[in-house]
Amino acid sequence: MDDESAVLAANDAFYVAFATGDIEAMGRLWADRPQVSCVHPGWAPLFGRAEVMASWRAVLAKPPAVTVDEARVALHGTAAVVLCRERIGKASLSASNVLVRTADGWKIVHHQSGPMAPQEQTALVLH
Amino acid sequence: MDDESAVLAANDAFYVAFATGDIEAMGRLWADRPQVSCVHPGWAPLFGRAEVMASWRAVLAKPPAVTVDEARVALHGTAAVVLCRERIGKASLSASNVLVRTADGWKIVHHQSGPMAPQEQTALVLH
Repeated sequence: MDDESAVLAANDAFYVAFATGDIEAMGRLWADRPQVSCVHPGWAPLFGRAEVMASWRAVLAKPPAVTVDEARVALHGTAAVVLCRERIGKASLSASNVLVRTADGWKIVHHQSGPMAPQEQTALVLH
Repeated sequence: MDDESAVLAANDAFYVAFATGDIEAMGRLWADRPQVSCVHPGWAPLFGRAEVMASWRAVLAKPPAVTVDEARVALHGTAAVVLCRERIGKASLSASNVLVRTADGWKIVHHQSGPMAPQEQTALVLH
């Protein structure tokens, strides 16, 4: 499997674990290293595997019906950024997942998701 | 300069360019490669250097009074993730910046920023 396909497969597996509340799979998909990080929508940044996995245990205790589409991969050597759109109910969110190639395959080291406004213009005010 | 200091310096320079509307500096801080990406608050993901830099030209035409604090670096080989808090007026935003080490130093390949809710509980609904 080429790098892009492997990264997309890991990204897909992340959303399967997310939607099914499979915390064991989620734990295996994230890199087993202390410096992983995560920004859930509206949350302050989380830093460190213990803190990140605790947040997933909280979120996956009542998993949302999340689906993903429009995933695009940017390869940067042994790192990759996946951009995709998450749909949860009527909400659309823009998400970034950062993965690194490890001896055990591509693993997630960072996730950020944030709500997509209905109109881009509203965002220009903030940024 | 060690990697962490170099990454933090590039991250700081990004926010100086952002706050001062310096599009030339912003262009130099981003990697000169097609697969860069960016998610502004509320926006759909942007992909590719042309699209990303066009967005910065639009944003920096009227630069916000942005400040940054609580920057933390996670090194992953030749890639790095910086998590930080942006403040624009009364708004707090969580941001992730992904950089890669190039022959020309550490360069930004991805940026995502999203609003931080006043209470984490509101975010659990969405994620």
